[in-house]
Amino acid sequence: MAIGGIRINGERLWASLMELARIGATPRGGVCRVALTDLDRQGRDLVTQWLREAGLTVSVDRIGNIFGRRPGRNPSTPPVVSGSHIDTQPSGGKFDGNYGVLAGLEVVRTLNDHGVQTGAPIEVAVWTNEEGTRYTPVMMGSGVFAGVFPLDYVLARTDVDGKLVGDELKRIGYAGSAPTGTPVGAYFEAHIEQGPILEDTRNTIGIVMGALGQRWYDVTVAGMNAHAGPTPMELRKDALLAAAKLVIEVNRIARGEAPHGRGTVGFMQVGPNSRNVVPGEVKFSVDFRHPTDDGLRTMERQLRDACARVGGECKVAVKAEEVVYFPPCHFDAECVAAVRAGAQAGGYPSLEIVSGAGHDAVYIARVAPTAMIFVPCKDGISHNEIEDAKPDDLAAGCNVLLHAMLARAGVAG
Amino acid sequence: MAIGGIRINGERLWASLMELARIGATPRGGVCRVALTDLDRQGRDLVTQWLREAGLTVSVDRIGNIFGRRPGRNPSTPPVVSGSHIDTQPSGGKFDGNYGVLAGLEVVRTLNDHGVQTGAPIEVAVWTNEEGTRYTPVMMGSGVFAGVFPLDYVLARTDVDGKLVGDELKRIGYAGSAPTGTPVGAYFEAHIEQGPILEDTRNTIGIVMGALGQRWYDVTVAGMNAHAGPTPMELRKDALLAAAKLVIEVNRIARGEAPHGRGTVGFMQVGPNSRNVVPGEVKFSVDFRHPTDDGLRTMERQLRDACARVGGECKVAVKAEEVVYFPPCHFDAECVAAVRAGAQAGGYPSLEIVSGAGHDAVYIARVAPTAMIFVPCKDGISHNEIEDAKPDDLAAGCNVLLHAMLARAGVAG
Repeated sequence: MAIGGIRINGERLWASLMELARIGATPRGGVCRVALTDLDRQGRDLVTQWLREAGLTVSVDRIGNIFGRRPGRNPSTPPVVSGSHIDTQPSGGKFDGNYGVLAGLEVVRTLNDHGVQTGAPIEVAVWTNEEGTRYTPVMMGSGVFAGVFPLDYVLARTDVDGKLVGDELKRIGYAGSAPTGTPVGAYFEAHIEQGPILEDTRNTIGIVMGALGQRWYDVTVAGMNAHAGPTPMELRKDALLAAAKLVIEVNRIARGEAPHGRGTVGFMQVGPNSRNVVPGEVKFSVDFRHPTDDGLRTMERQLRDACARVGGECKVAVKAEEVVYFPPCHFDAECVAAVRAGAQAGGYPSLEIVSGAGHDAVYIARVAPTAMIFVPCKDGISHNEIEDAKPDDLAAGCNVLLHAMLARAGVAG
Repeated sequence: MAIGGIRINGERLWASLMELARIGATPRGGVCRVALTDLDRQGRDLVTQWLREAGLTVSVDRIGNIFGRRPGRNPSTPPVVSGSHIDTQPSGGKFDGNYGVLAGLEVVRTLNDHGVQTGAPIEVAVWTNEEGTRYTPVMMGSGVFAGVFPLDYVLARTDVDGKLVGDELKRIGYAGSAPTGTPVGAYFEAHIEQGPILEDTRNTIGIVMGALGQRWYDVTVAGMNAHAGPTPMELRKDALLAAAKLVIEVNRIARGEAPHGRGTVGFMQVGPNSRNVVPGEVKFSVDFRHPTDDGLRTMERQLRDACARVGGECKVAVKAEEVVYFPPCHFDAECVAAVRAGAQAGGYPSLEIVSGAGHDAVYIARVAPTAMIFVPCKDGISHNEIEDAKPDDLAAGCNVLLHAMLARAGVAG
């Protein structure tokens, strides 16, 4: 490894992960620490204390993002930053987000252990409200930092009880005054994969090339309610039969864009949803993901063709409305190369991979050279209390992070 | 028509239908008069008053079925009965059930108008709780009458508030003391079709040959929840994809049993039902109907084959459990012939038809010679506030009922 093969302390990293996971711990082994709640405050307080104990200078920006800075030899050079988020889904796990933050902290602790001085400053970032459970938009803090969302818009967002983001930030003591969107020299984020590919291919490190673009649709099928008994098959306008055909089409379309295309119907609502009534209305979602905009457009065209064809076959009206668009994201070639070099230096089996999910890194990539490091999680399960990862894999990812950050920051003396 | 071509009074029938429909009338033109409620009591009181005003002797049995008897020349001969129900779905229409009861009343009024004495007594029956909305089982009163359900079992059934059928019958004043299940010479029930076939084929009278047998299933598909983004298509265990394939199979199976086979998935519940999560669990219903038990068994065998095949294809576990069985019902050949003769005598275009839905007549057919008469309803729509039927069609059905009842009861002198 870099600097005479220094390595992070995997046991210390694991112990910090387990200690942070006690805040909001659920009986089934998960974590419920939703953004801007009292538990989020407790989590932030603990991490901030650790940042200070590691000698970092802590600042908080106006959307509540926390930064801990370790000075470099060249204070005017933009920092090399690593981070993620510590808010969780309501039935979330111990690793999603938390790993990225504490891996950054562990890099700093390791540099301290070995008295390494870097050229550029090193920063650990904790982004506000990545999950978007209580407040949308998701990836709120990194989105504001990257200029995707205006600060005032986000501070005025409300939860179901009408409470404002701005007020809740003040209430928990994290409405900071530091400017947001300051220059970043390079950004690295370590994260569990949240998918099954690394485990399935027996790789330890995912060299993340970018993130899939996303197009989401709301589809409504309007047929005619009818008695299940007296209505002959050929006189029906069965909205669920049409929806079923479209579910199969969505899967067929995604399989036609292997290996990175994804197509998912995750939500479906049937009306009137009575066992002896032919359904007259079905609403469902479509989630398409693809590494290129061309690919997304091809998928959309096929979906619209399928809606028209199935609508005709089933004598129903089908309407598909796009509701979300995230463009595909391509990470910085040099940052990706630094991750690849780190994996090779550590001797870890690695795979080039494209993130299927959104991450804070996807927004930061719009304003700074960025890359991500994935490590396997058990059975690919995340956003679930049984989310799990192996200490050795987490340590490997953190060693790669250390290597990549040092490569970008430069080592003094 | 019989007896020198006497005919029922269609305007009087329509006026009675409209007057009864005022009790529980909904703003959208329907009726909400759920069994054993105060509105049911008001409806029963009005119909009972009309029965008495027509000179009938009214009795109420222990499950609240109401009978109005017009004596015949032979008082010891079992009566020829016509009836149906006046309880409705929560968003029901004016005609389902009510038409059968008031058509029976109109027959009696017509016999009175013309001073016709029948051989056998004539009775009008109002069966308790056909719809099964508040209390199951459906077709409760006719089921008790036919010995399908023990009286004590049914009296002890509870609604969602824990109120007993027996207590509610007493509360509304219809816990009678007449014995139930007394001999019936013949039973005829006039009803709107609740399906589109008569309208589609431009027929006025449906000569109902019997009712489809029914087998209902609860199907559970167990896959694995997964993130829609990071999970490649080929590593998914998508419960909704499997369920969609089975919806299509259910339709294919029913179309293979044309013209009378029916297959419906009316209910579906997706878990966790989040747009960016591959569904890990889906529950849905299957409703198969067929005129023969052999046909139902063939459909079930094909369903079980499809569950096994689709389960394997999608790497999910599929479980199908039968929850309801109604045997196919074949009406009495002589009663059906009497209906056919009535349609011919009236010069009404008619079609032999099989009831897809359950009716009180299906239970009465177990203990007495039975047939039904269907008339068209607009767009085949029923169990809906917009349920509608034409006065002329309702009058035609009532004339056929008159003819059939006289043919079975015999005309004195």
